[in-house]
Amino acid sequence: MKIAVDAMGGDYGPAPTVEGAVQAANELGIEVTLVGDESQIRDQLRRLRCSDPRLTIRHASQTVDMHESPALVARKKRDSSVWVATELVKAGEVSAVVSAGNTGASMVAAFFILGVIKGVERPAIAATLPTLTGTAVMLDVGATVDCTAQHIEQFAIMGNEYGRHVFGKPNPRVGLLSIGEEDTKGNEVTKEAFKLLKASPINFIGNVEGRDVYSGAADVIVCDGFIGNVALKISEGLADAIKKILMKEIAGSFLGRLSYPFLAAPLLRLRRRMDYAEFGGAPLLGVNGICMICHGHSSPKAIKNAIRRAKGLAESHLNELIQRDIEESLAQHQQADKGEAPE
Amino acid sequence: MKIAVDAMGGDYGPAPTVEGAVQAANELGIEVTLVGDESQIRDQLRRLRCSDPRLTIRHASQTVDMHESPALVARKKRDSSVWVATELVKAGEVSAVVSAGNTGASMVAAFFILGVIKGVERPAIAATLPTLTGTAVMLDVGATVDCTAQHIEQFAIMGNEYGRHVFGKPNPRVGLLSIGEEDTKGNEVTKEAFKLLKASPINFIGNVEGRDVYSGAADVIVCDGFIGNVALKISEGLADAIKKILMKEIAGSFLGRLSYPFLAAPLLRLRRRMDYAEFGGAPLLGVNGICMICHGHSSPKAIKNAIRRAKGLAESHLNELIQRDIEESLAQHQQADKGEAPE
Repeated sequence: MKIAVDAMGGDYGPAPTVEGAVQAANELGIEVTLVGDESQIRDQLRRLRCSDPRLTIRHASQTVDMHESPALVARKKRDSSVWVATELVKAGEVSAVVSAGNTGASMVAAFFILGVIKGVERPAIAATLPTLTGTAVMLDVGATVDCTAQHIEQFAIMGNEYGRHVFGKPNPRVGLLSIGEEDTKGNEVTKEAFKLLKASPINFIGNVEGRDVYSGAADVIVCDGFIGNVALKISEGLADAIKKILMKEIAGSFLGRLSYPFLAAPLLRLRRRMDYAEFGGAPLLGVNGICMICHGHSSPKAIKNAIRRAKGLAESHLNELIQRDIEESLAQHQQADKGEAPE
Repeated sequence: MKIAVDAMGGDYGPAPTVEGAVQAANELGIEVTLVGDESQIRDQLRRLRCSDPRLTIRHASQTVDMHESPALVARKKRDSSVWVATELVKAGEVSAVVSAGNTGASMVAAFFILGVIKGVERPAIAATLPTLTGTAVMLDVGATVDCTAQHIEQFAIMGNEYGRHVFGKPNPRVGLLSIGEEDTKGNEVTKEAFKLLKASPINFIGNVEGRDVYSGAADVIVCDGFIGNVALKISEGLADAIKKILMKEIAGSFLGRLSYPFLAAPLLRLRRRMDYAEFGGAPLLGVNGICMICHGHSSPKAIKNAIRRAKGLAESHLNELIQRDIEESLAQHQQADKGEAPE
């Protein structure tokens, strides 16, 4: 089983992506196809003194900028690293694609080349968040904005299967992100989604408020992609702000500076707990193939972990399970519609 | 100028609210009318050994539970502390009402009794957030869900006037909470709101991403109330989680415990920076009167600061300024509609 890595994607160019792929090959024994500019990839491999035969290179002549329009990529960048890597999935040459590049471009490539799983209306990005008790999965965090209640129901179905894989338990607790615990709280879409989830076979625990996300109240949290994206990015911004303020406070006082050597280890462990790199990427669920989206700032370790997770997902037959569940859900809705139809 | 305080509102009963009112009277010389159960309020005043003549009591026989339905309050709790306190504003006996009770009940009371400012379509709660460079105001954080672009435009107009008061500068930077900096990023409502804000006389700096909220990129941040509420509560939950994890890390290692005496002061200052109590309450903008909504967990200090801010807003003639700006905006839209009409 091979995993394709978009070697050119990410804020720092090919250095961290190639290094992450090398780690995945060396440490985990995973076969990786590095897709991108061949000479730049070779330079990186030389820098890392790597000649691992599990690493292969597939040349792609174009790169996609982080701020490039995804629509333009589909029209004019068919030989870009992310496009070619996704085509390798379609061709069956690799089992998954991992990219830390332009998220919109990854999604468009997956949509165009792989298509969606039968019955799935919209894809969703499922991010892993640290919580007080472990981790939680939140989706969608940016693939689909302006969701209907039906879209959110499908996110719950996909998130449920992904949660089973991540948490290794048959019935992860699925919560709906809203602004109050009662089913009457929320906006029009969440109130409607609440009813759909209540009637579904999923272990739906009801509404989850923003303040419960990090307490570990739910394993899987579903929401509209606009809201999930805001929630994820505001969390990143706040964690960063707290770190900066704390460091300034510590550096700004004599006693603070005195304590720093003692503090370094706990702060490092805190950082690890909060570090998305530990979790690797976030899968784009709902497309016909395994597509892992990583943060633009991804470190080699984050890339390595994303490759590991991509391999795990490909082996778990996640998409077949999603397709089965979606079909069952659609059949259930058809049944309900028939039952409700006038005689 | 007198300020009414809903003495019975909040998670901890009348103790912190009465104490906050006593502090506002003693330390700031503000006249406060405590509204609620007279004997309980007198007990608290005795406990605090307070006989400040600037404090008066207005008896109200009912209380509203934190989870009570706001609609029920309007029908059956017309002698509750929050309802009576809001009526005092309407009657002109006080200049503002401060409540740490059921937010929905405060809003319904303000809506029913005070009504909205002429031209305002929906009210908005404007929360103050700490940032790396100072503070920012975010609205709406829960009064109005399912907003239209026009509602968000009005939030910007109201937030602009409130921001002028809070930051003491004529043109606060107003940002629109979205999922990318470009005007093409967002959901349908934010993309439409972007155009309206661009055409308005406000100092609109464009879209602001979640990760920019705490960096201080904007003074005033506008969004739908569902999204603002999720953003606020997820921030609370994350700050709380980070604190807990850090404390556990420190307590869990020998060196961490050794460092604690040195760390206490920086951690306390961090808590202060992050503490909403410093900022007092959040005004419900758009209603015909000054109505400050406080967190259910409010400390006496938070109540005191909310009373101070309520007085400042009443003195600033905020609502007259909002009404003027809203009228100008409506006139501008009418003009634009005429210009666009076919000849």
